[in-house]
Amino acid sequence: MRIQDVAKLADVSTATVSRALATPERVSPEARARVLEAIAKTGYVPNPAARSLRSQKTYMVLVVLPDLSNTFFSKILRGIEERLFEAGYGMIISDLDGSPEKEAHFAAFTAAGRVDGAILLNGHLFGQTREGEGMPAKIGIPLVALCEAIPSADIPQIEIDNRAAANRMTQHLASSGHRRIAYLSGPAGNVLEKERFLGYRDGLKAAGLPFDPALVLPGDYTIESGVKAGQDLVARSTRPTAVFCTSDEMAIGLMRTLLSAGLKVPEDISVAGFDDIEFAAVAEPALTTIHQPRRELGQMAAAVLIDLLQGRPSPKRIRLETELIIRDSVASPQNIEKAPAKSTRTRAIKPT
Amino acid sequence: MRIQDVAKLADVSTATVSRALATPERVSPEARARVLEAIAKTGYVPNPAARSLRSQKTYMVLVVLPDLSNTFFSKILRGIEERLFEAGYGMIISDLDGSPEKEAHFAAFTAAGRVDGAILLNGHLFGQTREGEGMPAKIGIPLVALCEAIPSADIPQIEIDNRAAANRMTQHLASSGHRRIAYLSGPAGNVLEKERFLGYRDGLKAAGLPFDPALVLPGDYTIESGVKAGQDLVARSTRPTAVFCTSDEMAIGLMRTLLSAGLKVPEDISVAGFDDIEFAAVAEPALTTIHQPRRELGQMAAAVLIDLLQGRPSPKRIRLETELIIRDSVASPQNIEKAPAKSTRTRAIKPT
Repeated sequence: MRIQDVAKLADVSTATVSRALATPERVSPEARARVLEAIAKTGYVPNPAARSLRSQKTYMVLVVLPDLSNTFFSKILRGIEERLFEAGYGMIISDLDGSPEKEAHFAAFTAAGRVDGAILLNGHLFGQTREGEGMPAKIGIPLVALCEAIPSADIPQIEIDNRAAANRMTQHLASSGHRRIAYLSGPAGNVLEKERFLGYRDGLKAAGLPFDPALVLPGDYTIESGVKAGQDLVARSTRPTAVFCTSDEMAIGLMRTLLSAGLKVPEDISVAGFDDIEFAAVAEPALTTIHQPRRELGQMAAAVLIDLLQGRPSPKRIRLETELIIRDSVASPQNIEKAPAKSTRTRAIKPT
Repeated sequence: MRIQDVAKLADVSTATVSRALATPERVSPEARARVLEAIAKTGYVPNPAARSLRSQKTYMVLVVLPDLSNTFFSKILRGIEERLFEAGYGMIISDLDGSPEKEAHFAAFTAAGRVDGAILLNGHLFGQTREGEGMPAKIGIPLVALCEAIPSADIPQIEIDNRAAANRMTQHLASSGHRRIAYLSGPAGNVLEKERFLGYRDGLKAAGLPFDPALVLPGDYTIESGVKAGQDLVARSTRPTAVFCTSDEMAIGLMRTLLSAGLKVPEDISVAGFDDIEFAAVAEPALTTIHQPRRELGQMAAAVLIDLLQGRPSPKRIRLETELIIRDSVASPQNIEKAPAKSTRTRAIKPT
């Protein structure tokens, strides 16, 4: 795809396309909009060599989020911003919200040198799918992947060991006596989901438990998908005794639905989460979960990007430690295979 | 304060100070840091007339937050970002985190023309206190205040009617039969806190209830301050029958502490919140609260700023509607003046 194709589609000169990318303030808003739309449609990627003619630094970093309204990101953003600020960089936010137009815009924005570097939390490079298909956009500036690793990309990856953490939680549930442990998944195709699912399978295997596809519930990390999974469980005649939810938001939504239906947590059904967001400790019951060091993840990604921007070497992969946080939402199963009963919140000491 | 003072303190030429503000990429990081530090110390504000010599637009908007890690802002930021994006503007985040150095930096950044406009969620202009004391920085670009109004500033204010909403909730608690209604406050000096406290007083008055200073508990809108207020209440021999928490985060923290101490919500004590964050509906019990249209507030602030940036007239004050959301955390008092009893979750229909 050439600049001529973009110009033709946008009904402007090639010079206008170049200007819209390099010095957008010299192009009318209407022409800019047409050029960006054409770039989005054609998948055109500006030549980074041409871009590098501009030597000016912007002291700005782009942070690409899949969903800015997800509270999981708040502490991560604070960690990124504080470290960038210390080094004299500002933070521009791109909230993709599933929009290909927005993604094309920010790819062009980045390639045009409007920022010095970018931190990607969306699990893929500009121009590629999550599966690594398609040609990555030639961005020409340092990139770092945070939380959602991009295994196919040769850029630093800052993450946790999602598989090991999910394995640990699954084994924790098994060691509490659970034999039918359900798994509430993240969105299909998400690398976090893939790794956590492998960890769940690892944990079942280590505990000598069979994998049952009927115990895998679809989710997407939101409260709403937790509520929905709860409705599914409530309607079942035979229920799992524990549910491993791969986000705290889903766990809190699921508990809400179970409690509303008269089921007790953890007496009738144990619930575990993932992330340790602020609301996990104050949920009722307080949520057993995996602690992610969110602020530190943000700080680390910013620090690695700053190293790259300032010409220092950086490690290719950094994994921060997680922690199993045991609170009140998991107990030994007391009513295996029975209908919900009015049990008291006394814990059985020995798993059955 | 003159540019000469800044130059002297930073040990650079006045030309370097000008460059550090107008074209920071032409100054070494070390010199930039010294200049910004000197600006922070001296309170120097660049001359907007000099700045306007640069006619280039940046198509960037600064969003100034008091605390990026507060989940309340997530949906507001999404609303701002989506509306800015539609109009071709990017969003730069400044997370003040109580730091005067950061504030001085972003004042200089803004005055230097690095952004076209700014949305202030921090309750004061650059260079002023929350009380409107001090000279506001001469920023020279359009500003909009969002959520926390800045009454002394002649800029558009996008907000809700905090006083009316707090009045409504207080009267709702009174009409449920409560006579001793505690108030869990926001941070001292915050304009939201001032308005909500006035609304609480209005509501007590309208219900014919006396104001009791012993029922005002200090808070700062965080979960932690809700937990702390809960510990205070648990330790009291005579407790209020209802607590109006001026943020949902505080209400959720407070409920956690009450429940852990063996008190039942709402049977022993009713709890109400403010904001209607995502976790309010799935709290246990589900939280009665005031709904704030957060995404719409963000969209509206961005739309008003875009009007200003594009030379269109804008209203000076916009108040979006709130809603009283009745869920399960408020009921009629059943055990007034008595120690907590094991009551069932049956609601009394008539207030006593």
